[in-house]
Amino acid sequence: MKVDGKHLRTIWLEEDGRTVGIIDQTRLPHEFVTARLDTPDDAVTAIRSMQVRGAPLIGATAAYGLCLALRADASDAALERAYAALFAARPTAINLKWGLDEIRAAVDGLAGAARVAAAYARAAAICEEDIAINRAIGRHGVKLIEAVAARKKKPGQPVEILTHCNAGWLATVDWGTATAPIYTAHERGIGVHVWVDETRPRNQGAALTAWELGKHGVPHTVIADNTGGHLMQRGRVDLVLVGTDRVSANADVCNKIGTYLKALAAFD
Amino acid sequence: MKVDGKHLRTIWLEEDGRTVGIIDQTRLPHEFVTARLDTPDDAVTAIRSMQVRGAPLIGATAAYGLCLALRADASDAALERAYAALFAARPTAINLKWGLDEIRAAVDGLAGAARVAAAYARAAAICEEDIAINRAIGRHGVKLIEAVAARKKKPGQPVEILTHCNAGWLATVDWGTATAPIYTAHERGIGVHVWVDETRPRNQGAALTAWELGKHGVPHTVIADNTGGHLMQRGRVDLVLVGTDRVSANADVCNKIGTYLKALAAFD
Repeated sequence: MKVDGKHLRTIWLEEDGRTVGIIDQTRLPHEFVTARLDTPDDAVTAIRSMQVRGAPLIGATAAYGLCLALRADASDAALERAYAALFAARPTAINLKWGLDEIRAAVDGLAGAARVAAAYARAAAICEEDIAINRAIGRHGVKLIEAVAARKKKPGQPVEILTHCNAGWLATVDWGTATAPIYTAHERGIGVHVWVDETRPRNQGAALTAWELGKHGVPHTVIADNTGGHLMQRGRVDLVLVGTDRVSANADVCNKIGTYLKALAAFD
Repeated sequence: MKVDGKHLRTIWLEEDGRTVGIIDQTRLPHEFVTARLDTPDDAVTAIRSMQVRGAPLIGATAAYGLCLALRADASDAALERAYAALFAARPTAINLKWGLDEIRAAVDGLAGAARVAAAYARAAAICEEDIAINRAIGRHGVKLIEAVAARKKKPGQPVEILTHCNAGWLATVDWGTATAPIYTAHERGIGVHVWVDETRPRNQGAALTAWELGKHGVPHTVIADNTGGHLMQRGRVDLVLVGTDRVSANADVCNKIGTYLKALAAFD
């Protein structure tokens, strides 16, 4: 998505073809600062200190962390050491293990420079796959927004969307999950306005979602988490779009604290 | 209720029999500071700056504000001037107008010192009436808590109560409305534990309810507003006790933003 008119991802290979750039998300929304990961330890620190957060982005960062390890030492021992250190950085993020396993599988049977090249190629592919997934979420999800827009009495009246926490492009490589349909609608010229739950206690909505929507130019208003119910009661919300940490086989959703309260109000 | 072992009200006549003491609630929870109201303007400022807040306490402060005005000048003109100034301090608080009207009615037909005496007597009676009302809320409401306590599998297990915003003794002259049953249960030796919603955006729960429960010695935990639903889902809440700004004839309740979300979860 765009930051001050310039297109940006949350993670990228630097021009040297080796080190990895990230946005330091601990400094948002007050400062926009990027950081450069040079060693696997830098990647561990980035994950542990939440400079990067959101499952898809953590997976991509972990993958690049193994690349950085292999670049210094392409041996199996070095690989396993870095794997263990990165895995311990945030054991609850399922994408982290997935990203690590993808790289390990990609370099299996290779040695030396071929190993390093394969690792970097797979890490880049993981990023592209994440973007493709999110674009697809956007393409499918935008239909819901288009349907609401078509029902609006006054043409051009914005579709009012409530969102909780940050399931935006800052949590992924680009586009976001819950926000992908919103950005897609915005690109297609459908008027949207987003009610951004501040999302206590860590304020990811106020600090991250509001920041990224603002930088991309999507109209939005930060609200206290308590306000969502009131707005729904008054018919001021057309759609609630939230991310999910896990989906069970019977379609139950696990997500950030507070989602349940919003779901009850949306149902009511 | 008690503050560091000493019994206290939110408003009191000072020993000089003329000026009025209040707790400066804008300084809580960080500092416990009292203030002295000497003129009707002091009362206007106290209401306007939210040194005093909560409908019952605002009503009592307004009543004493008229007393202070009449002490300086017992004429009808002075009474009406002070009435207008106090009424404008917080036009949405219904108890404010009620408190002013009570004093005006009490001094009607009287003059000079008799006026002043009647005003002070009525203001003191307003405070006593408020305490009596809140004690009665406590006496009736505690039955709900006692009933839950009797059903607890393990004797002595605390009754878990969720509360939103501040409907505690700081909002009244003493005891509080929603908290009166909690304090009554505590006095009767029934184990209670209160989940205190922090109550964004102004944090009256975190700043005021938690402070007063803590000072009185009632076990409690401050939670993000989002957490209430999760705790209810897990069966960690026996009872939700909230205040109300207004109750309609069909028993609909108007209360602080966020109450609706908690009501939906309690029902679910």
